[in-house]
Amino acid sequence: MGTRELGLPEKVASVHSLPERVTIWEVGPRDGLQNEKSIVPVEVKLEFLDRLADSGLTMLEATSFVSPKWVPQLADAEQLLAGLDRREGVRYPVLVPNERGLDRALEAGVSHIAIFASATETFAKKNLNSTVDDQFAMFEPVVTRARAAGLDVRGYVSMCFGDPWEGAVPAAQVAGVGKRLLDLGCSQLSLGDTIGVATAGQVETLIGEFPDVGALAVHFHDTYGQALANTLAALRCGVSTVDSSAGGLGGCPYAESATGNLATEDLVWMLDGLGVESGVDLDALVATSKWMAGKLGRPSPSRVVNALAG
Amino acid sequence: MGTRELGLPEKVASVHSLPERVTIWEVGPRDGLQNEKSIVPVEVKLEFLDRLADSGLTMLEATSFVSPKWVPQLADAEQLLAGLDRREGVRYPVLVPNERGLDRALEAGVSHIAIFASATETFAKKNLNSTVDDQFAMFEPVVTRARAAGLDVRGYVSMCFGDPWEGAVPAAQVAGVGKRLLDLGCSQLSLGDTIGVATAGQVETLIGEFPDVGALAVHFHDTYGQALANTLAALRCGVSTVDSSAGGLGGCPYAESATGNLATEDLVWMLDGLGVESGVDLDALVATSKWMAGKLGRPSPSRVVNALAG
Repeated sequence: MGTRELGLPEKVASVHSLPERVTIWEVGPRDGLQNEKSIVPVEVKLEFLDRLADSGLTMLEATSFVSPKWVPQLADAEQLLAGLDRREGVRYPVLVPNERGLDRALEAGVSHIAIFASATETFAKKNLNSTVDDQFAMFEPVVTRARAAGLDVRGYVSMCFGDPWEGAVPAAQVAGVGKRLLDLGCSQLSLGDTIGVATAGQVETLIGEFPDVGALAVHFHDTYGQALANTLAALRCGVSTVDSSAGGLGGCPYAESATGNLATEDLVWMLDGLGVESGVDLDALVATSKWMAGKLGRPSPSRVVNALAG
Repeated sequence: MGTRELGLPEKVASVHSLPERVTIWEVGPRDGLQNEKSIVPVEVKLEFLDRLADSGLTMLEATSFVSPKWVPQLADAEQLLAGLDRREGVRYPVLVPNERGLDRALEAGVSHIAIFASATETFAKKNLNSTVDDQFAMFEPVVTRARAAGLDVRGYVSMCFGDPWEGAVPAAQVAGVGKRLLDLGCSQLSLGDTIGVATAGQVETLIGEFPDVGALAVHFHDTYGQALANTLAALRCGVSTVDSSAGGLGGCPYAESATGNLATEDLVWMLDGLGVESGVDLDALVATSKWMAGKLGRPSPSRVVNALAG
């Protein structure tokens, strides 16, 4: 290629305000691998986590304590955490659906968990077998016990913009769910566009519903190609934590059911160009995603990975 | 899918100012097909143009009068224009490299041409066998004669942000080339990110170099996944003409040499969501790109086409 050697993308400060630094919450090992068809051996997952840490990522969502019945791809959660080489300055949050999951997470010695809520009734029913109201009764003991044990808790909110059954989701409804999660004791909300339909104006509207933008992260899927544009809109609103998946793991752009996460590399390219610090070495990350694509036996959907991994 | 029926994406006005209406300059038939490996029969091209007009697009860059030696994919330019069913309210600009090309275009009865300039010395040498300064001597008689014949002239500027040989391209250098094209008589400039490396801050900086944003169009390639985010940045600067390619024709995301244009469908999804009028019927356009992908024997790289063409 040669463009990397030429110092591209050029660092140019935006005329609009942007955060000086963005924390990338890397979801590839959990959200990515959970949505891949193949089950990746635990040794490969451990090497993946090591390589992601080597590339400068500091928030690595490592695995999930959802029942292995539902997510066989992550059935090795205990084994993975036991084998993990925890790095200084890197955190390894895990997904926890309920108290049983929390028990397992505590046994495994984690320091940071994430719970997941739904902004819509239909998805609450389908994903949690609950209602929007009743889900908080399920979360309450999890968050309380986790906080008592000194853990940080992130709250994911699913279907923040559109829902395949209910259509467009009102921002006030999402904000209501988010505020209840914050009140329960979550230190951060991740606002998720689970089906990837949002556009930039909706992103700004939803973020505007929250008094403290510092407690927000955004989680965009690229199903309709909007993920990076939406991220730019969120950064301009002051959001400084962005979820993404190394190599775009978790979705193949040529599949109808594509639910692809924003690729971390495409995000880092933009941040580098905007002069926003992320601490990530793009070349090291691209090499890691290229390696992982080989393990999965299919090309990465990340544009940057394909452009740079020549 | 169902999301279209549910009225997604929701129309939400942006908190920032955006143009009320955007003109999409559809480059698929020219820039797209010229960069596809297969040579498409003229009958298919004519049906493609008809279907694009049916979907509501009003600027269809139809073909090129570059020598067939260099672009065999468009060697049928005369035949195509002779067979074209010109629609009321639709314009069919063509690319013209020099006076010989202009002669052919005038004979074919076109009313709108586009010339192409380089912002960098290396690309001027490689693409035009000229220099940045000398290229204007080549353009001058083309523009003068075209204007005298009542034609509109668009000026493409290539390598506006990065150049594979020279690296980052200074905005002032690009603006200098652009202003000389406007002075020659071009009614519009299309600022091209030929290798797709630009990020949003650079886009804003370059647009800020021009006193009249109304004379600008932007032309982004998605090589590094930045095309739509850059478009959003340009719209926020007041740009209201955007180049894109139906189905993302002209680049395959899995090829190393991907130079893919922004997909018109991904752009329309964003514009619809932002409440910006484009006049395009997204479902009709997706059906057209799906049909064309069948003719080319490969899937469309457009995320929206893949999500909606179930």
